Amino acid sequence: MEKIRIGSVGLGRLGLRHAENVASKIPGASLHALCDLDEDLLARTADRLGVPWRYTDFDQMIQNSEIDAVVLVSPSGLHTGQIEAALKAGKHVFTEKPLGVTVEECKVAERAVEAHPDRVFMIGFMRRFDESYMYAHEKVMRGEIGKPVLFRSYSQDPESCIEGAIKYAGHSGGQFLDMAVHDIDLARWFVGSEPQNVYAIGGCYAHPEFGQYNDGDNVSCLMKFQNDTMVFLFAGRTAPHGYNVETEIIGTTGILRIASVPQKNMVEVLDSYGVRRECSDNFLDRFESSYVREIQEFVDCIREGRKPSVSVYDGTKCTEIAYRCKEAFETGQLLEF
Amino acid sequence: MEKIRIGSVGLGRLGLRHAENVASKIPGASLHALCDLDEDLLARTADRLGVPWRYTDFDQMIQNSEIDAVVLVSPSGLHTGQIEAALKAGKHVFTEKPLGVTVEECKVAERAVEAHPDRVFMIGFMRRFDESYMYAHEKVMRGEIGKPVLFRSYSQDPESCIEGAIKYAGHSGGQFLDMAVHDIDLARWFVGSEPQNVYAIGGCYAHPEFGQYNDGDNVSCLMKFQNDTMVFLFAGRTAPHGYNVETEIIGTTGILRIASVPQKNMVEVLDSYGVRRECSDNFLDRFESSYVREIQEFVDCIREGRKPSVSVYDGTKCTEIAYRCKEAFETGQLLEF
Amino acid sequence: MEKIRIGSVGLGRLGLRHAENVASKIPGASLHALCDLDEDLLARTADRLGVPWRYTDFDQMIQNSEIDAVVLVSPSGLHTGQIEAALKAGKHVFTEKPLGVTVEECKVAERAVEAHPDRVFMIGFMRRFDESYMYAHEKVMRGEIGKPVLFRSYSQDPESCIEGAIKYAGHSGGQFLDMAVHDIDLARWFVGSEPQNVYAIGGCYAHPEFGQYNDGDNVSCLMKFQNDTMVFLFAGRTAPHGYNVETEIIGTTGILRIASVPQKNMVEVLDSYGVRRECSDNFLDRFESSYVREIQEFVDCIREGRKPSVSVYDGTKCTEIAYRCKEAFETGQLLEF
Amino acid sequence: MEKIRIGSVGLGRLGLRHAENVASKIPGASLHALCDLDEDLLARTADRLGVPWRYTDFDQMIQNSEIDAVVLVSPSGLHTGQIEAALKAGKHVFTEKPLGVTVEECKVAERAVEAHPDRVFMIGFMRRFDESYMYAHEKVMRGEIGKPVLFRSYSQDPESCIEGAIKYAGHSGGQFLDMAVHDIDLARWFVGSEPQNVYAIGGCYAHPEFGQYNDGDNVSCLMKFQNDTMVFLFAGRTAPHGYNVETEIIGTTGILRIASVPQKNMVEVLDSYGVRRECSDNFLDRFESSYVREIQEFVDCIREGRKPSVSVYDGTKCTEIAYRCKEAFETGQLLEF
Repeated sequence: MEKIRIGSVGLGRLGLRHAENVASKIPGASLHALCDLDEDLLARTADRLGVPWRYTDFDQMIQNSEIDAVVLVSPSGLHTGQIEAALKAGKHVFTEKPLGVTVEECKVAERAVEAHPDRVFMIGFMRRFDESYMYAHEKVMRGEIGKPVLFRSYSQDPESCIEGAIKYAGHSGGQFLDMAVHDIDLARWFVGSEPQNVYAIGGCYAHPEFGQYNDGDNVSCLMKFQNDTMVFLFAGRTAPHGYNVETEIIGTTGILRIASVPQKNMVEVLDSYGVRRECSDNFLDRFESSYVREIQEFVDCIREGRKPSVSVYDGTKCTEIAYRCKEAFETGQLLEF
Repeated sequence: MEKIRIGSVGLGRLGLRHAENVASKIPGASLHALCDLDEDLLARTADRLGVPWRYTDFDQMIQNSEIDAVVLVSPSGLHTGQIEAALKAGKHVFTEKPLGVTVEECKVAERAVEAHPDRVFMIGFMRRFDESYMYAHEKVMRGEIGKPVLFRSYSQDPESCIEGAIKYAGHSGGQFLDMAVHDIDLARWFVGSEPQNVYAIGGCYAHPEFGQYNDGDNVSCLMKFQNDTMVFLFAGRTAPHGYNVETEIIGTTGILRIASVPQKNMVEVLDSYGVRRECSDNFLDRFESSYVREIQEFVDCIREGRKPSVSVYDGTKCTEIAYRCKEAFETGQLLEF
Repeated sequence: MEKIRIGSVGLGRLGLRHAENVASKIPGASLHALCDLDEDLLARTADRLGVPWRYTDFDQMIQNSEIDAVVLVSPSGLHTGQIEAALKAGKHVFTEKPLGVTVEECKVAERAVEAHPDRVFMIGFMRRFDESYMYAHEKVMRGEIGKPVLFRSYSQDPESCIEGAIKYAGHSGGQFLDMAVHDIDLARWFVGSEPQNVYAIGGCYAHPEFGQYNDGDNVSCLMKFQNDTMVFLFAGRTAPHGYNVETEIIGTTGILRIASVPQKNMVEVLDSYGVRRECSDNFLDRFESSYVREIQEFVDCIREGRKPSVSVYDGTKCTEIAYRCKEAFETGQLLEF
Repeated sequence: MEKIRIGSVGLGRLGLRHAENVASKIPGASLHALCDLDEDLLARTADRLGVPWRYTDFDQMIQNSEIDAVVLVSPSGLHTGQIEAALKAGKHVFTEKPLGVTVEECKVAERAVEAHPDRVFMIGFMRRFDESYMYAHEKVMRGEIGKPVLFRSYSQDPESCIEGAIKYAGHSGGQFLDMAVHDIDLARWFVGSEPQNVYAIGGCYAHPEFGQYNDGDNVSCLMKFQNDTMVFLFAGRTAPHGYNVETEIIGTTGILRIASVPQKNMVEVLDSYGVRRECSDNFLDRFESSYVREIQEFVDCIREGRKPSVSVYDGTKCTEIAYRCKEAFETGQLLEF
């Protein structure tokens, strides 16, 4: 069977990673086109990765009939439009989160996906493709921890990245949309239910800069889900030890903790600081193989005529919930869904 | 200097432990009297520990002028009355939590303590005397973790004790008063502030029996404190792995976790279940030395004419907060303090 | 640049894995031929992986001029002959350990490699390509632990695989050659020196079957290296908890431990067995990505005209040392090198 | 029953600790006399602990008929003589290790103990009274790990104490006698057998000063015991992370590790150094409660007319073995027992 020819859009940090993965780590796919506004970067990257087609214009790229599928790692505000256009041009679409920057945009994307039922559409909730999360999820599905009682999940960016976060603060949509959206997806995936109400708090504990966008540098929320599971989420930008994404699922007969120590690898250091594990530096470090595995699944779905388990509706739902959390945070009210 | 002669009241599991500790592990004190309604148990224990005086009547005991101080491990409903009577009889008083079963009772206790400023009064928040909690508290006080962002604390009883918990459910006051009160005390101690509002949820995930008392078998709450610290508490009665009391304090420059693995000792087992640590069985196992250290502090305060750092007002405050959490849980409302 | 076309030899468990890796995980390479005596397995695997050429005869395969390189995962006794023949036929050669089953055979392989200086030759010491071992090695090379004092390394196969081990016992060469050879390679790599003398002990603690081959089911040795580093190796076939490969390097200013808990992933389970990590099942599980990385390095060396850091002499040296350990074990003597 | 009145000898670091423990932590005992050459220290300590009798002369002290038992924490060279004299004077004797500085001295001590069968004699192998070692030992005795295969034990002093170690190097007897003797005792206790032969190596990796006493700053040995168990011991003076005493017992059906992370308490720190546990500073920190428990056992034996499980012969045996290890280290030979 022929390789799926992919056009990848956006060459930021994650975009570059996706491009490199498609170019060299995804059997069954080839990186056939790159699209970015920065012509220099585009040329250099395309040369390095041996990519035949280069575009600074997305709409031109999707007219290229040699391209089977696109991978969108463009600015969040462009996602919905590009999803629509690419599907209409007959391409399969993988988009990084968020599906759209408003719920309305998400609904537009939903309609576009529904209008092209023969195209594969997938959204990048890469944690679902992490080996440890997958392993834990199977245990939960097999009933090994009984009925879920409490789902707790943290997303913490390292303090060392704070400058970038401050610069980007006005465009991020706030921590619930930018960071906790992954935990929201995990909660729904593990708990198998939807939220009923939410209370959210937080503040600027170290960096008042976030305040002007009605955001905090650390926030949290407590939700009750429809099946009674308690869900506590925490998102922070000042982690002293590194990039920390951890999750705990307390069930009636067992408890699972995923990455409660965000160790970089299996090396333990014993020195004057004690006995210690060094931590993941960032999301690319921690989820290196998840990013490969999710694109692999996208490509396999195309080749095997399957639909991914994560759907466009998951994207909308997570965005809706994140917006509701944000509203709860901004108003200080207990809100229902 | 003469030893402080102590009369200990109540010979339940914890009462017995306090009596044994006073009898043999507290330099500067002697176990001079025991009081319990069960005459057989009273006689056997007093004989075994070499205690000269035995009482089935508390009021008689406190008339004994040889006794300097009392340790109250009686049923919760009796605490306030016994505190008042003992102070009035000139005794120093150590009482197990709770100070009283209602806030009104706590106020009565406060007035009694205020009326006897020359007597030492102390309440049994034993976690403040745990080596690890003390060590962590010092670090926080020294500013080693910066400004507190999130305080998270769990109190979980093992599922293996569920029968007793169900039997006692009607008298426990619910999990916020019975269990989370310790976490409330820790939160105030570590965070150095008071709660502003609270949202609480939970339910009966495994044992519907708690429902008839408007309680759950697992509950949680999210509070914002006056200094903005987020406080998340979780209390459960169905822990599969043992007695689990753990606390995390996330600060802007450091994070501390106390007992995130409730390991019984320093033995690691590698067998067909993997690489594992066996866990504490119950509070007596986990806080063995804390119970000694708190009574030691009580005795030292008497001998040195000092007041304990934990006061009667801490007792009232924790009870008030626990009641407010309970009300939030029962009404489903977001409540202010 | 054209892809390196590889012919892979042997379709046992590891052979199959190498074939799958070449087929789908190694950019820059393609699986062009397979060779195995089992025609059925050969056909099924070649069909599944889309391999154009299939051989039951190794000598025929290396006459195929479309093949650039071979990967040898054949029975140990065939390695040396196939290395010689393949190099002579102009192929680059990657061989699984051992280089040869006797030191004499290794010397033959050395001469063959020396006779074809323009061919890439590499031996499969996959641990050198494990992320954690690489990370630790860099730390040691940078001097972060000071001067090496003690190097300790364990290779333990799980008891669950004992039947296969017993069946294979007569052909394995014994535990020093079959298992500890990897630890010997690591010791030389980390310590940067060669052994001076060795004392070895062990026995059949659970399975007397190994005794008939003068082997034990668990063995160990203590060596002094020329630079004074102490080296303690342990190899066992009865690990109750899984596949355990761990290493500790104690230096004068720091200590590193690699995989002291052979955790399968980042999931921690809290249940009635305590707080636990599940373990790796076998070498394919534990070293999954190392097997990819080492072939990638082989392919990159071919494409870039480089030589791998691990040479044919490392293969000979490790075999010599393993044989000396075996002799020390069999004679009970302290032996010099 | 009357309290056992104890005279404690030697007010070095450990002597002071024993004195304080007897004074305040051992029910059933009272500190009745102190003996030390330093009159100032003697007076201050005796005043502080409320000790009625003070001696600078050991022989005078044991003439005091009010004293029931002595605790010897004097310089090693004085042990045997003081044991003999104290027993002859009718005292029960607890002595710190070593029993004597030569095997001949140990034999003298044995005869003295045999001559006073009604006196309790005990030697301070405090690790046997550590909660974790006791817990592990019970598991081994119950057969939970099957047949012992490998016993590995480390004794590491922190580099921060190196100055004292160098000063004391000429008197310590070397690391096998000074440090590994505790591991030798543990090996015999856990394995239930005696060594058959030994090979020992090591050197001065950081501090050449030890060389002049034919000692190293780090040493190790491999022994085969009569029941075939492999025993690997390591002793070092340059631990970067703290005071590290750890032991692993690999059995055919289970493995136990005691204190593989020498964590000071249950606090985990997450900061810029990673996720870490701070370590024990020294033996007094790590074995705090063991020192109390062993004296408690000594006192209980006296009161209950029992003999301790650890005998004078254990003292001799460990000394003999340590001397043989030392000889193996000095000669470089494989030695038999």
